[in-house]
Amino acid sequence: MAVIAVVNGPNLNMLGGREPEVYGTETWQEIRGRLEKIALDMGLELDFFQSNHEGALVDHVQEVATIASGMIINPGALTHYGYSLRDAVAALSLPVIEVHITNIFAREEWRSRSVVSPVVRGVISGLGAAGYELALLALAAIVGGEDR
Amino acid sequence: MAVIAVVNGPNLNMLGGREPEVYGTETWQEIRGRLEKIALDMGLELDFFQSNHEGALVDHVQEVATIASGMIINPGALTHYGYSLRDAVAALSLPVIEVHITNIFAREEWRSRSVVSPVVRGVISGLGAAGYELALLALAAIVGGEDR
Amino acid sequence: MAVIAVVNGPNLNMLGGREPEVYGTETWQEIRGRLEKIALDMGLELDFFQSNHEGALVDHVQEVATIASGMIINPGALTHYGYSLRDAVAALSLPVIEVHITNIFAREEWRSRSVVSPVVRGVISGLGAAGYELALLALAAIVGGEDR
Amino acid sequence: MAVIAVVNGPNLNMLGGREPEVYGTETWQEIRGRLEKIALDMGLELDFFQSNHEGALVDHVQEVATIASGMIINPGALTHYGYSLRDAVAALSLPVIEVHITNIFAREEWRSRSVVSPVVRGVISGLGAAGYELALLALAAIVGGEDR
Amino acid sequence: MAVIAVVNGPNLNMLGGREPEVYGTETWQEIRGRLEKIALDMGLELDFFQSNHEGALVDHVQEVATIASGMIINPGALTHYGYSLRDAVAALSLPVIEVHITNIFAREEWRSRSVVSPVVRGVISGLGAAGYELALLALAAIVGGEDR
Amino acid sequence: MAVIAVVNGPNLNMLGGREPEVYGTETWQEIRGRLEKIALDMGLELDFFQSNHEGALVDHVQEVATIASGMIINPGALTHYGYSLRDAVAALSLPVIEVHITNIFAREEWRSRSVVSPVVRGVISGLGAAGYELALLALAAIVGGEDR
Amino acid sequence: MAVIAVVNGPNLNMLGGREPEVYGTETWQEIRGRLEKIALDMGLELDFFQSNHEGALVDHVQEVATIASGMIINPGALTHYGYSLRDAVAALSLPVIEVHITNIFAREEWRSRSVVSPVVRGVISGLGAAGYELALLALAAIVGGEDR
Amino acid sequence: MAVIAVVNGPNLNMLGGREPEVYGTETWQEIRGRLEKIALDMGLELDFFQSNHEGALVDHVQEVATIASGMIINPGALTHYGYSLRDAVAALSLPVIEVHITNIFAREEWRSRSVVSPVVRGVISGLGAAGYELALLALAAIVGGEDR
Amino acid sequence: MAVIAVVNGPNLNMLGGREPEVYGTETWQEIRGRLEKIALDMGLELDFFQSNHEGALVDHVQEVATIASGMIINPGALTHYGYSLRDAVAALSLPVIEVHITNIFAREEWRSRSVVSPVVRGVISGLGAAGYELALLALAAIVGGEDR
Amino acid sequence: MAVIAVVNGPNLNMLGGREPEVYGTETWQEIRGRLEKIALDMGLELDFFQSNHEGALVDHVQEVATIASGMIINPGALTHYGYSLRDAVAALSLPVIEVHITNIFAREEWRSRSVVSPVVRGVISGLGAAGYELALLALAAIVGGEDR
Amino acid sequence: MAVIAVVNGPNLNMLGGREPEVYGTETWQEIRGRLEKIALDMGLELDFFQSNHEGALVDHVQEVATIASGMIINPGALTHYGYSLRDAVAALSLPVIEVHITNIFAREEWRSRSVVSPVVRGVISGLGAAGYELALLALAAIVGGEDR
Amino acid sequence: MAVIAVVNGPNLNMLGGREPEVYGTETWQEIRGRLEKIALDMGLELDFFQSNHEGALVDHVQEVATIASGMIINPGALTHYGYSLRDAVAALSLPVIEVHITNIFAREEWRSRSVVSPVVRGVISGLGAAGYELALLALAAIVGGEDR
Repeated sequence: MAVIAVVNGPNLNMLGGREPEVYGTETWQEIRGRLEKIALDMGLELDFFQSNHEGALVDHVQEVATIASGMIINPGALTHYGYSLRDAVAALSLPVIEVHITNIFAREEWRSRSVVSPVVRGVISGLGAAGYELALLALAAIVGGEDR
Repeated sequence: MAVIAVVNGPNLNMLGGREPEVYGTETWQEIRGRLEKIALDMGLELDFFQSNHEGALVDHVQEVATIASGMIINPGALTHYGYSLRDAVAALSLPVIEVHITNIFAREEWRSRSVVSPVVRGVISGLGAAGYELALLALAAIVGGEDR
Repeated sequence: MAVIAVVNGPNLNMLGGREPEVYGTETWQEIRGRLEKIALDMGLELDFFQSNHEGALVDHVQEVATIASGMIINPGALTHYGYSLRDAVAALSLPVIEVHITNIFAREEWRSRSVVSPVVRGVISGLGAAGYELALLALAAIVGGEDR
Repeated sequence: MAVIAVVNGPNLNMLGGREPEVYGTETWQEIRGRLEKIALDMGLELDFFQSNHEGALVDHVQEVATIASGMIINPGALTHYGYSLRDAVAALSLPVIEVHITNIFAREEWRSRSVVSPVVRGVISGLGAAGYELALLALAAIVGGEDR
Repeated sequence: MAVIAVVNGPNLNMLGGREPEVYGTETWQEIRGRLEKIALDMGLELDFFQSNHEGALVDHVQEVATIASGMIINPGALTHYGYSLRDAVAALSLPVIEVHITNIFAREEWRSRSVVSPVVRGVISGLGAAGYELALLALAAIVGGEDR
Repeated sequence: MAVIAVVNGPNLNMLGGREPEVYGTETWQEIRGRLEKIALDMGLELDFFQSNHEGALVDHVQEVATIASGMIINPGALTHYGYSLRDAVAALSLPVIEVHITNIFAREEWRSRSVVSPVVRGVISGLGAAGYELALLALAAIVGGEDR
Repeated sequence: MAVIAVVNGPNLNMLGGREPEVYGTETWQEIRGRLEKIALDMGLELDFFQSNHEGALVDHVQEVATIASGMIINPGALTHYGYSLRDAVAALSLPVIEVHITNIFAREEWRSRSVVSPVVRGVISGLGAAGYELALLALAAIVGGEDR
Repeated sequence: MAVIAVVNGPNLNMLGGREPEVYGTETWQEIRGRLEKIALDMGLELDFFQSNHEGALVDHVQEVATIASGMIINPGALTHYGYSLRDAVAALSLPVIEVHITNIFAREEWRSRSVVSPVVRGVISGLGAAGYELALLALAAIVGGEDR
Repeated sequence: MAVIAVVNGPNLNMLGGREPEVYGTETWQEIRGRLEKIALDMGLELDFFQSNHEGALVDHVQEVATIASGMIINPGALTHYGYSLRDAVAALSLPVIEVHITNIFAREEWRSRSVVSPVVRGVISGLGAAGYELALLALAAIVGGEDR
Repeated sequence: MAVIAVVNGPNLNMLGGREPEVYGTETWQEIRGRLEKIALDMGLELDFFQSNHEGALVDHVQEVATIASGMIINPGALTHYGYSLRDAVAALSLPVIEVHITNIFAREEWRSRSVVSPVVRGVISGLGAAGYELALLALAAIVGGEDR
Repeated sequence: MAVIAVVNGPNLNMLGGREPEVYGTETWQEIRGRLEKIALDMGLELDFFQSNHEGALVDHVQEVATIASGMIINPGALTHYGYSLRDAVAALSLPVIEVHITNIFAREEWRSRSVVSPVVRGVISGLGAAGYELALLALAAIVGGEDR
Repeated sequence: MAVIAVVNGPNLNMLGGREPEVYGTETWQEIRGRLEKIALDMGLELDFFQSNHEGALVDHVQEVATIASGMIINPGALTHYGYSLRDAVAALSLPVIEVHITNIFAREEWRSRSVVSPVVRGVISGLGAAGYELALLALAAIVGGEDR
């Protein structure tokens, strides 16, 4: 069964509690539940990982590359300066989709530039937690070799 | 029946033929066919419009606002300088999702900045024609008031 | 009877309805009514034109130049990137006054720079619809050769 | 009787003599005479002040705030770096209109940026001494609560 | 008989009358006459198009691509911001030569940067109307497969 | 008893030995001793944490938020690029004071910009180890609801 | 008895009345009262000066240098462009602490850069009027030669 | 018989051998042969000069000015930083045409800016060796006083 | 007898005492003595003025213009931001020479740009107090109409 | 026996497998083997460390400083933003040589700037794994006090 | 007898003929004559050198350093990019004065920045050929050890 | 016997005497002696060239390319603006290593950017004269086809 890695960066463990007017009130557990249900329907296995440590994210991206067929990554604030994470992602041969819960282009100027985007397949930003679900659908299609 | 406007900017009428190594070989007619099938399944009506004229796009955005419940917009190259189109979009009270077929963050520097993004709900970039389908799913959920 | 051209750019046809907290609740029809009354009092004829198409604005500026003695122009968002319109205005030998309803210097950074301003006689910004009236008074004085 | 403060910054005491090809040949005394006549007609009192000292301008703006209902200010070269004057203006609750005799957008690059504009109601630039008269008309309408 | 498309952007319909000290006194009709004579001599057909509308230029570039063997384009002020036109040109497989009547590198700073130049074969600037003739000669040689 | 968290970033464990001509000869143990004495006098408890890992700092900031009433943070070099730490701090509802031992505005250009400052209550820079003591006094007043 | 100079720049005479939502409701008289009480306790004399004139501030800084042992300075808006004041401060051999009532790093971009900071001992920003008190404590320690 | 100077800058002596995928396989001798044939037909004499030394180019430009009626110059890499050569060219009263074999606007960013262009009559770029021939035709017309 | 105005800006009253390692140990009185001796020899009268107030400098420049035949100005730190002073100088029809005691191009980056230089006849920088003497010699020659 | 620390940053554990067309096919184990053989010959001991965590690298640099006589560091992507690592290196009194396997000046713009370089003795870039060997030779000479 | 080197860069051999409206009508021979007369009076010997070759200027500066006691240098356009010449000057232990005939701060933007100025004693700009004479006087005083 | 070209740019002929605190006290003759000894051991011939003329360096690089198997180049100050030299190097098919005696990344900002680096194999900076020796070793290995 194909595995899709879901990788979350710094502060995303706080979803639901952290600045809910910005990031929403749903917790990661709730989002994860919905993602697992969708994956089940599509015959995919999900591998979840979150860390506030860029190093741990790099370690994980390197390791998960050997078992995963695709990756959804929300690098949190590392989006804007995590060149080590970027290089780890750039070394992958998997399709990777970058997800942001908020519309990073409508916030502070420095959030509108991602150092990761140039090395991923695609970007989904601003659609809330639903962004993860859409990314999962997209990856399923790419991984499944569906003719689009 | 709720209407979703699908608005395409300059040169998107050439899809399939134009630089296929960049934009893919699928024509807009084929993409439109799939979108209409999905919409039908979800009980949505689609309103398609394409123009190479920024003025015509502004005219259309103003008019379609009175009948549509949501909008998918791919402004083409106007993404990067079409402030008139941006202002027309900013005046909407509909949810709008910006779609790009290619990953605009992995191309020329000037393509990585969108003047439209700060006034839309979300952005989907780099997932090919599937980006339109994902945007449609997302809008359906938003418009349908589904609890996410 | 001397003619003053009044030229409005993209989205100004939506005045009154578009983001009223920014642009006010008065419609263009109401503003136009007041302008016509003032013109009548001063023995001036007004020629109104609005378009969302930069090309149509350029066409019009070229044509109206043969009959008008002065011009009031609000280029809308083209203010910030409409170099074609700028060149059309620069080619005029009429006095031209640029008007903005809002104070463009107190909004987004990109709105504070006008590509048209360097080729007009004067600029009035932030005084609401009254800016058109003041521009009309100023043009009347210039055109009438009044000694100021 | 409502008072309108008219505040002129550095070098504006030299009008008429200073670089007349740029600033015109009319002296401030002549301009002031016309303004007083207009004010008289409208039942307004004018309070004039000019200084080459930013500090004196800040002192005056602070003091006149207690008696004036509106302000016309031409900060001269302080327009471009007088942040203290800007802060004094920003603290006012009066409507303020910034006036420039020349079109500051058609001269040296550094003149095209005003640090005062973001904190005033409106800006009139390039219409010569008539700019003061138009500003007076606009303030009269605002102060008089006229419905525009 | 091979066709060469000659495409002129905004305000070039005004040649001869518009700012003659900048653009010369020759009208487009006169220039066109000379070009047609040269083409005749070389056994080439010319297809002329001018518009002040970027959208119309994009439409035309897309259409003429099916019949032309080469293109001469003077994008007027769109040279500096017409990314939609640029993308239309980039999609061509024809040799394209960009022509400017004036030396755009000796005027305002913003005119010295062309967004179209990176996607054309060559650029001729500052040689007046003769630039079109030289471009025609160059295209004839390229299209004719002359050994240079 | 109210708890004040004291958080030190990379290399601050080396105080006293590291570049003493820049950072002074006092060790962190000595500074800590003085802070504890002051806290004791004010009836406050201090919670100390230092790490060279941004991730560990983010972890700690998230955790300590549940027990602390205020925070003193010296992010070390992360001051200038630690956006993850910034987001962790931004999510706090505690008053936070940023402290720098040296005057960061009088050193290399890149040190004069802090990505953390926009999300803290206040900043104390250049007053040596005494900066921590002043921050403690300030927090005590804020937390104690003293009327200032 | 050692003298500490307290120097306030433009608009700080308006404290309490000026934009109280930004600068607080406490007047300078009240702040001054508290500072004098603290000084008394520490056996220090305070010398107060405020001016809206940069020149007067430079005059004062030059003069007070002969009697003071330390200085607290809040340059107001001159913080961002008052190079003359900066040079006057740079010429001092006294310890100087720059104070800002608001967090200048969390406001407009231009407020986040101080031309004075590179020549002072330390900076305290964002702690309200308490910043003056903390600066006084810090100066007392420095002037008193306390071993920190 | 009128003389046209043809001046080539650094590395152009290597044409044909140097990076032929960029600069073509034709040698300068071959190009020169064709130019001489064209000149002969037009009754013009050509004066050729190439040097890798900016100083030698300046020396030559100064000297040739006394005998030539026009100049074709390809400054090679000096195009982008050779201000001395620029000043030598600026001092000429001859018509000068700048030629580049490659399209300098489609290569590295630094090649897209020429310090020489602002002081020449016109620029031809990207048309290969044919650019020299076109420049010769253009100069012949200008020098011959042909009515264009 | 022709009058030469000598105008010194902020902090130049402190010469000799202020940062002597930068500005030298000579006092302004000593420099003035030498200048007066030279002037006497050349039959010139000197008019000295120094102020720390930009406004006072502007006042003085305006007034002295009616009696002086030339001006030496050292604007101190106003060199870098004193646009009001610049405008006062620009309005003069006298020859003006800007003098700096230190080499402003070998110090902080911000000191290397003068806003006054574009409107003066010449600049002398870095030659110490002798710069004033050289300026006096140069002005004497210009004013005396000596043939150079 | 003198110890040389060899420190590798993020993703360098993947050498040989990661983007081999960029970083080569040799694994770190193979490189390490060669380095140890060279060290043995020179009577040096090597201390190897690699981590994807900036914090762990800082920890290690602090610790190894007490036993090493020199350091070779390849900070990986931290080269470009790892200011904490930079500060840790800056605090060392050992000679440090920065090594990059690829030529960082011939890749993406952001890779051409190293925040570490200003605080190291020297930099070797682009010579592949041999760069480590050259650095070892250089350090041996420096540490050995060899007279160069 | 002390020797003063006078070094002129590119195009200064053309003085008198080159753009006389910019550089004056006096030839270098005439200027040189006056300089030699002044030198004779002061017991100084002058060593003149001019070249259009930066390399020749560097050669000369290196050589003349062994015999000269001071240097006057006008680097011509090399002022703005001649870093090799700058380094040659920086290596001198002689006092060097940079002279420009025109006011380089009142011309094109790129002329206002000198790469040589940071390594010379002083700069004289805009005083015409008299600048050389003033530099000679200044050097005589410095070399003669006159007490200034 | 394979030849390695060693090319030194401006001012490197002054090594040992020029600013010894920056460049060391060793003369080029001494460095050259050591290099020749090393080359002899490795069976390589060295070809030395130094010039202060960029043109001469370009001439030499073009010529030596026909006999050399590798090149060591220290472009001196041309490193930062010598685009002609860069283009000459870029045209080589030899391996080239750029050497700098000092750490150019730890000096003035403008020295930290090399226009040559993007077209060489590798860069060695800051290791003193030993940098030439290391480059020689590296080239020997590359040229000798040693398996690294």
